[in-house]
Amino acid sequence: MSTHQTQVVIIGGGPSGLLLSQLLDRKGIRSIVLEKHTREYVLGRIRAGVLEHGFVNLMREAGCSGRMDREGEIHAGFHIAHQGRLDRIDLAKHTGGETVMVYGQTEVTRDLYEARDAMGGVILHDVQNVQPHGLKDARPYVTWEQDGAAHRADCDFIVGADGFHGVSRKSIPAEVLREYEKVYPFGWLGVLSETPPVAEELIYARHDRGFALCSLRSRVLSRYYIQVPLTDRAEDWSDAAFWAELKRRLPEQVAGQLETGPSIEKSIAPLRSFVAEPMRYGNLFLAGDAAHIVPPTGAKGLNSAASDIYYLYHGFQDHYLQGDSSGLDGYSGKALARVWKAERFSWWMTNLLHRFPQGTETDLRLQRADLDYLFSSAAAQASLAENYVGLPY
Amino acid sequence: MSTHQTQVVIIGGGPSGLLLSQLLDRKGIRSIVLEKHTREYVLGRIRAGVLEHGFVNLMREAGCSGRMDREGEIHAGFHIAHQGRLDRIDLAKHTGGETVMVYGQTEVTRDLYEARDAMGGVILHDVQNVQPHGLKDARPYVTWEQDGAAHRADCDFIVGADGFHGVSRKSIPAEVLREYEKVYPFGWLGVLSETPPVAEELIYARHDRGFALCSLRSRVLSRYYIQVPLTDRAEDWSDAAFWAELKRRLPEQVAGQLETGPSIEKSIAPLRSFVAEPMRYGNLFLAGDAAHIVPPTGAKGLNSAASDIYYLYHGFQDHYLQGDSSGLDGYSGKALARVWKAERFSWWMTNLLHRFPQGTETDLRLQRADLDYLFSSAAAQASLAENYVGLPY
Repeated sequence: MSTHQTQVVIIGGGPSGLLLSQLLDRKGIRSIVLEKHTREYVLGRIRAGVLEHGFVNLMREAGCSGRMDREGEIHAGFHIAHQGRLDRIDLAKHTGGETVMVYGQTEVTRDLYEARDAMGGVILHDVQNVQPHGLKDARPYVTWEQDGAAHRADCDFIVGADGFHGVSRKSIPAEVLREYEKVYPFGWLGVLSETPPVAEELIYARHDRGFALCSLRSRVLSRYYIQVPLTDRAEDWSDAAFWAELKRRLPEQVAGQLETGPSIEKSIAPLRSFVAEPMRYGNLFLAGDAAHIVPPTGAKGLNSAASDIYYLYHGFQDHYLQGDSSGLDGYSGKALARVWKAERFSWWMTNLLHRFPQGTETDLRLQRADLDYLFSSAAAQASLAENYVGLPY
Repeated sequence: MSTHQTQVVIIGGGPSGLLLSQLLDRKGIRSIVLEKHTREYVLGRIRAGVLEHGFVNLMREAGCSGRMDREGEIHAGFHIAHQGRLDRIDLAKHTGGETVMVYGQTEVTRDLYEARDAMGGVILHDVQNVQPHGLKDARPYVTWEQDGAAHRADCDFIVGADGFHGVSRKSIPAEVLREYEKVYPFGWLGVLSETPPVAEELIYARHDRGFALCSLRSRVLSRYYIQVPLTDRAEDWSDAAFWAELKRRLPEQVAGQLETGPSIEKSIAPLRSFVAEPMRYGNLFLAGDAAHIVPPTGAKGLNSAASDIYYLYHGFQDHYLQGDSSGLDGYSGKALARVWKAERFSWWMTNLLHRFPQGTETDLRLQRADLDYLFSSAAAQASLAENYVGLPY
């Protein structure tokens, strides 16, 4: 068994884990990142593309924002299509100038890998049987296997950024952990296509046939979604059927502009709200999907992970550089307070825009009234906008 | 059969019908009000007590605001109790100075009767078998019986302000009418007591045991409510049991101040959302509870009736004084647009503050997050405030 010594072991080499290790490294705090997949696999995942300004600032603080600031698109608003109308939420106007950045999670991850490589960061890929130990001890450790050999890293703290199915949350004793979950009775069928996006800004569409979303990753890469029953399978949806259904759910002036093309990725994602409490157990800290999942409406998944990373980054800084562990001690409470607000917002926006199979005609009219009220009220638009650009950390 | 001639027959002598007849009379437009109950019965009904500024302005325009302006209380805010805390919504601050008036519906009705009497208004009480006829004809008429004699009034228009169970809505052919309904799985047990209110402003309480409300009619008359299962019966709740349960649902600093006394009224009201469309059929116009019901959370019942009366008042004025019937023609659409927003608000506030028997732990946490977000956000408070004081007509 080869043994490593470090300060923080980060389980999970997705954007959260990488961002944290990069931020810590720049403050002289050592970490090891363990990722069970290959780098190619991680970079192959198609995920979110709308970054809160808080996330953008973290990338800048991490020294990884060069390409993002050049190639990413600042969005100062987005659209909601409903009842044949296309209304706009002016994010900048309602938040005193704040905006979001459209830049794919894949690109974020790529930039973070590059930055870690440049600094000589330790990222171990393709590791198996990762297992945290001694979470309640002063000096916990993590074991894993790689290429058939056993490894161990002794550390001060472990960060579990290994996603919903990862080992970290499962290492917290069941009698300590409380889990909250809500599963929605539909999924999103997503298509990635190398076509120019139908509009410069995102369009969220509420339609009697179901929700649709026109999103994008760049000027030449579009991401579209339609709400589908959970019983549907992506392979049963031809490209032609997808585009036809998408067009049906968009206002005419949008559908007429839609440029279609072959899908380069097509998949169905279920919608789920999930929170695990607490987010700290002994010297293990959960971050991102390991502790919470939001339905994708409103793009709070990666952004909620980023706020965990923000609190952990400052907590570790205070601990190592100033001998003040109050930030780490308060981590779970602070992170969860913001997480629940993101859960609330994602749930609200999901309810606002989706067709619920069990919904009555009265529910549909209340939903319509919700949208009518939203676009009649500066206060309601401001509330939506401040959530969309990201509540303060 | 004795036959009357008038311009508008108003079915229903509650506050809406009286207010409309008073407003019309002051513009020289003649009406007859038909009320199936006695005046004493109408005045004996215990109802809402929070009036939007728009309602207050209508009472002033009707010349009926003398006593209300002297004895009514201006409330510039209210409280929400949750998680042991007592947070305040500052209505005036978030709406540019708008407020609500606390003045019982009974007092409003009394003032309106007095004003109608002073002007010689025709209000017929204790009438039976009221029936509108010829709704699609140029000259419709209404028949009724009083003291065993048959009566008929020929008119230009009929206003149905006769409540949910009244004849007016039922006179619209079923194939024309669309009804939307949502019934909530709980009721409000209300107690009226001649005790000083526990606080100067209203307190809405969200508690794991269920919702509670501390309201008032005056400095010496309090109105309290607790959420109860629909299977409960008011007569099974002793005063002592009511006060004990109310105190359990209030923060300690409030419960400790609560002055209890014998109840002078005690009843259980179910909670329902209901809208009938359209609100005009031929020459019949529905107003208030005849067309829509809201759950009482947020006090939009009487206030939504008042906005119907506002649109009808201006519609009849334009028609009779300027020969312009566009206001009457647009009545149903305009009234319903505002009604649905009030329905949305009442439904939202009901969801925010009640314990739902089928709700999961996740639902409870999302509800708590909703409240936490509300009191962290000026925009969210402004949205609540603008609805509470009343959206513009």
